[in-house]
Amino acid sequence: MLWNTNVRLSLPAVCVVWQIAMIILFGVFIRYDEESDPHWIEHRKHNNLTDIQNDFYFRYPSFQDVHVMIFVGFGFLMTFLKRYSFGGVGFNFLIASFGLQWALLMQGWFHSLDYTDGKIKIGVENLINADFCVAGCLIAYGALLGKVSPVQLMVLTLFGITLFAVEEFIILNLIHARDAGGSMVIHTFGAYYGLSISWMLYRPNMDQSSRLQGSVYHSDVFAMIGTLFLWMFWPSFNSAITDHGDGQHRAAINTYLALASTVLTTVAVSSLFQKHGKLDMVHIQNSTLAGGVAVGTAAEFMLMPYGALIVGFCCGIISTLGYIYITPFMEKYMKIQDTCGIHNLHAMPGVIGGIVGAITAAAASESVYGHDGLVNTFDFKDAFANMVPTKQGGHQAGGLCVALIFGIGGGLIVGAILRLPIWGDPADDNCFDDEAYWEVRGRQFILLK
Amino acid sequence: MLWNTNVRLSLPAVCVVWQIAMIILFGVFIRYDEESDPHWIEHRKHNNLTDIQNDFYFRYPSFQDVHVMIFVGFGFLMTFLKRYSFGGVGFNFLIASFGLQWALLMQGWFHSLDYTDGKIKIGVENLINADFCVAGCLIAYGALLGKVSPVQLMVLTLFGITLFAVEEFIILNLIHARDAGGSMVIHTFGAYYGLSISWMLYRPNMDQSSRLQGSVYHSDVFAMIGTLFLWMFWPSFNSAITDHGDGQHRAAINTYLALASTVLTTVAVSSLFQKHGKLDMVHIQNSTLAGGVAVGTAAEFMLMPYGALIVGFCCGIISTLGYIYITPFMEKYMKIQDTCGIHNLHAMPGVIGGIVGAITAAAASESVYGHDGLVNTFDFKDAFANMVPTKQGGHQAGGLCVALIFGIGGGLIVGAILRLPIWGDPADDNCFDDEAYWEVRGRQFILLK
Amino acid sequence: MLWNTNVRLSLPAVCVVWQIAMIILFGVFIRYDEESDPHWIEHRKHNNLTDIQNDFYFRYPSFQDVHVMIFVGFGFLMTFLKRYSFGGVGFNFLIASFGLQWALLMQGWFHSLDYTDGKIKIGVENLINADFCVAGCLIAYGALLGKVSPVQLMVLTLFGITLFAVEEFIILNLIHARDAGGSMVIHTFGAYYGLSISWMLYRPNMDQSSRLQGSVYHSDVFAMIGTLFLWMFWPSFNSAITDHGDGQHRAAINTYLALASTVLTTVAVSSLFQKHGKLDMVHIQNSTLAGGVAVGTAAEFMLMPYGALIVGFCCGIISTLGYIYITPFMEKYMKIQDTCGIHNLHAMPGVIGGIVGAITAAAASESVYGHDGLVNTFDFKDAFANMVPTKQGGHQAGGLCVALIFGIGGGLIVGAILRLPIWGDPADDNCFDDEAYWEVRGRQFILLK
Repeated sequence: MLWNTNVRLSLPAVCVVWQIAMIILFGVFIRYDEESDPHWIEHRKHNNLTDIQNDFYFRYPSFQDVHVMIFVGFGFLMTFLKRYSFGGVGFNFLIASFGLQWALLMQGWFHSLDYTDGKIKIGVENLINADFCVAGCLIAYGALLGKVSPVQLMVLTLFGITLFAVEEFIILNLIHARDAGGSMVIHTFGAYYGLSISWMLYRPNMDQSSRLQGSVYHSDVFAMIGTLFLWMFWPSFNSAITDHGDGQHRAAINTYLALASTVLTTVAVSSLFQKHGKLDMVHIQNSTLAGGVAVGTAAEFMLMPYGALIVGFCCGIISTLGYIYITPFMEKYMKIQDTCGIHNLHAMPGVIGGIVGAITAAAASESVYGHDGLVNTFDFKDAFANMVPTKQGGHQAGGLCVALIFGIGGGLIVGAILRLPIWGDPADDNCFDDEAYWEVRGRQFILLK
Repeated sequence: MLWNTNVRLSLPAVCVVWQIAMIILFGVFIRYDEESDPHWIEHRKHNNLTDIQNDFYFRYPSFQDVHVMIFVGFGFLMTFLKRYSFGGVGFNFLIASFGLQWALLMQGWFHSLDYTDGKIKIGVENLINADFCVAGCLIAYGALLGKVSPVQLMVLTLFGITLFAVEEFIILNLIHARDAGGSMVIHTFGAYYGLSISWMLYRPNMDQSSRLQGSVYHSDVFAMIGTLFLWMFWPSFNSAITDHGDGQHRAAINTYLALASTVLTTVAVSSLFQKHGKLDMVHIQNSTLAGGVAVGTAAEFMLMPYGALIVGFCCGIISTLGYIYITPFMEKYMKIQDTCGIHNLHAMPGVIGGIVGAITAAAASESVYGHDGLVNTFDFKDAFANMVPTKQGGHQAGGLCVALIFGIGGGLIVGAILRLPIWGDPADDNCFDDEAYWEVRGRQFILLK
Repeated sequence: MLWNTNVRLSLPAVCVVWQIAMIILFGVFIRYDEESDPHWIEHRKHNNLTDIQNDFYFRYPSFQDVHVMIFVGFGFLMTFLKRYSFGGVGFNFLIASFGLQWALLMQGWFHSLDYTDGKIKIGVENLINADFCVAGCLIAYGALLGKVSPVQLMVLTLFGITLFAVEEFIILNLIHARDAGGSMVIHTFGAYYGLSISWMLYRPNMDQSSRLQGSVYHSDVFAMIGTLFLWMFWPSFNSAITDHGDGQHRAAINTYLALASTVLTTVAVSSLFQKHGKLDMVHIQNSTLAGGVAVGTAAEFMLMPYGALIVGFCCGIISTLGYIYITPFMEKYMKIQDTCGIHNLHAMPGVIGGIVGAITAAAASESVYGHDGLVNTFDFKDAFANMVPTKQGGHQAGGLCVALIFGIGGGLIVGAILRLPIWGDPADDNCFDDEAYWEVRGRQFILLK
């Protein structure tokens, strides 16, 4: 088989055609919502509101934090490879920019369609949700980093966003599960989607590029930029679309605490299982974030501060052990090659997050939340006015199953598509090398190795 | 001619004298405005406001995003040269810190002078405007990166801020053009100001330092930090000083969309015009931002989401082609050496932004904006109560011309001043080298090249 | 004496045991406050408030900025050493994550204890204060960078947070000094705490690792990430917990101006005192921040814009001269080894800040602040309803003395504890080397030096 990484026709074609499609679809479907339209001034007066009550001021700071997580957080976390930093941060940039447009449409049709005129009305909350939707695909990219072409990534994103929007609609609207920080909807789905694709694209001879599959000193420091921005802004991620007022406030506190706790157990396990007790940057870069994933679903619930610490405590341990034992096991015996270890950072913590969410929801009570607080937090309104917490717990568990099914099933199908020999992916001895898709200048000093 | 980059007397002298001048002028002129003065508490009660309606809460998050763009965004974008990273981020830091003080005074005299006591009253909006004003000079620095001394940069900034404040007053107040994100006022002016200076300072023998005029692997990754923070926070830039409520909301959405679209066409053109379809980091670092520039003027208008995508689509193409064809052409035939390619990132997209703004303004109507919305968005009040959209379109075009005239004219004059042989600029074989102005330690491994 | 940097048992033990202690204490003591509890909805209706008046929206953007300063700001500022970047950013991450938990408890007992049920009620302001508290210990780490083990750092943090909470309670509540940005409480205390510990841990033969005690080109650029994020977000730091409305607004303006001024005098002095007028990155990375420290106490007062510029002007000069003359002097004659130069960045500017605060407070008057403004700004209420500005000035000076006493005294005691030969600290010829505590891969090209 002839390997050819020349994407000079396919990549421009995909980018231009899809961008034109976006323009047409946006022209047909997308309009500003009530709070971003100039008629806001009349709406505001009519409802006796002030400008500061525009949803923009409730959510824009969180949106920008999420935005940083998507582009700098995920992007720089993937610069850790010694010769794939361009691909890590650059392709992350490309697929996120495409994905968010497609997400605005897909999520818009499900959640923001105005039936009076058939238009999707967007505001700042839609931008946040689009970024969330993209996160699922970026997680999947983590498993495939260095082994796929940008054209494959565009395909992965197109299908990933589509699948995401459908599973999200099923989980949130039909099943009526709550998932503020997306432990299930984003992390579980995204991780199993990526791992299934990676299984389909298994490369038995990838040891041919093993010389490149590692970090150098400076690339590890670059990756810490990604780690820290993800870690710091995760409270904004988990609180970005929760209820105004106490909902956003509580979600931020819970996430802040869970993440702090994770750092300590990650350090503990990393040191304990390493020769001479030395810390491994891979763990510090990744496992310290597991608590943020696992507290996603329950962040807006009354998890309690100590509950958040416990979740973080467990996830730091599990995630770091995953890097030490499970990732090598999966590669050796299960034919799943997971470059960034998303199984440890997103899959396991995501599932834990779904379970924690189900338990916390089932344990909710009016005595803790107050009557109005319970109705508000779990949205026991309209068609779901008769829900009770225990039942809600079951629905949460159901949501987790849907995320798993969509992730694995979708990944197998999309993986099959990506196996077609038309996408320009690199040869086994050419993986993890920016030279395949980038003009690389003057990095001779790296070659000294 | 003897070249001497020793600025041991001139640089400290300029810094200290100008800083003392700032202190004196601030002492005479600058005071807190109503919302940052302790009398706010009485003002608030008298007007039946709550603390959250202090302008601080409307604008401070956007201000901080803009602040990051100015110092980290512009600063790190200019670290891409292999041996001029200190100068890129360090001199950016210096001239921005000086420029914002001078801008508070210059813009204050024009816009925030309280005629009752002859004082300039400042609040958070003034800080944003000062950062904006500085951006014009930082853009100009992009053309000159590596070829000028810090003393020259201080002079460039002193004049640049002054010119900026005058052209801004003419464009916004006298001509009554709108320019929320500064496509004309900031980008067009700043870019032509820098290009004209570069033309005046043309170095025919600059190939003597060509070994240093390029990036290495890690410096390209550093530059991506700048790119991404500019890209992510551009929605805050374009919405920072727009109207409270729907104005800020809409400007953010439009910018978000334009930038997403630009990334795809930048990648497409970069791959299509490169041998083997490989992507060029120069394009990814710069052209992906062109959509944010071009949507600046019209961001607060009813550009519509698809309109924003179209603007971004075109600018990604034009800007990338500019890097491939126009920059070499300008250097070879027009004697304009443009280190960072600001012609492609700021000049052309800025002019496009002015034109898009004029068209969008001319096309405005009460049916789209509502009566109150139209008056509010275009500020058809007081002396301009009789303006109509078509006429506003003409005024917008007039504003663009003023920006061009001030940029080119001002640049020629300041360039002439900077040609005087007293500023300590580097010799031709010494350009793009931090050793001229910085103590450089332990970077031996870079020399391997 | 046998040096052994193996922390394989001690580090995991400390992390796990302390984290479990945190979980237990949080379980017993920490609950959500009124604004992050689901009963907010009833509280809000009862008090006729809207959701946007939840304290979350007043403070969360500032909190996130402070959070970035703690983790990216301090963390990356400490990456400047050529072979200790992992330790700089990584141990900063570890001790901040532990410290903030302990701080929530310690500060909670003093400031947020609800006497009706014996619980500490936390909200976003507690998170900010916890980050502030941590900052004191991170400053102390700056003096010790590269010379201590992570276990020592955990001990330093445990005691540091404890001491901080006590001195803070004495200064703010008992003495009733104001210290919005923590010039005294955070910077003076933290710096003298670290310097005293460093004196206790003096290493006479540290020249054995002098080959590693410096930067390389790229590590200096990494450190600039820390510098700039600290510099940009310092206005948020100083305004994060000031009064709603004009208090936050004014504190941000003053800090913005002081920092701008500092940059110019830092550049001036750095160039003037260096051979050939070349700038030194150490000064640019550190002394440019001194103005933010020194304006901390007075940021919320009527310091006036020119006053802020003057404070910044002086601190840039003093801090840079400190790096040139005082740091070498202290190492040679006073046996204080100060890796990051915290004496110049935090100690001297902190003391200056305390003095400026005392003077500004003593000079306050109703004619400048208005009656309500004066009462509000200085909190002349309840037990302190009879305070007058001149007396407040005296109390401010008293607060500064308490910070000095706690810093020096606490540092001597904790330093004595850290001298015990059980903590796994590195040998003299092994300082500033990540290999002691980290798995380091593929940084061969650094060794060329």
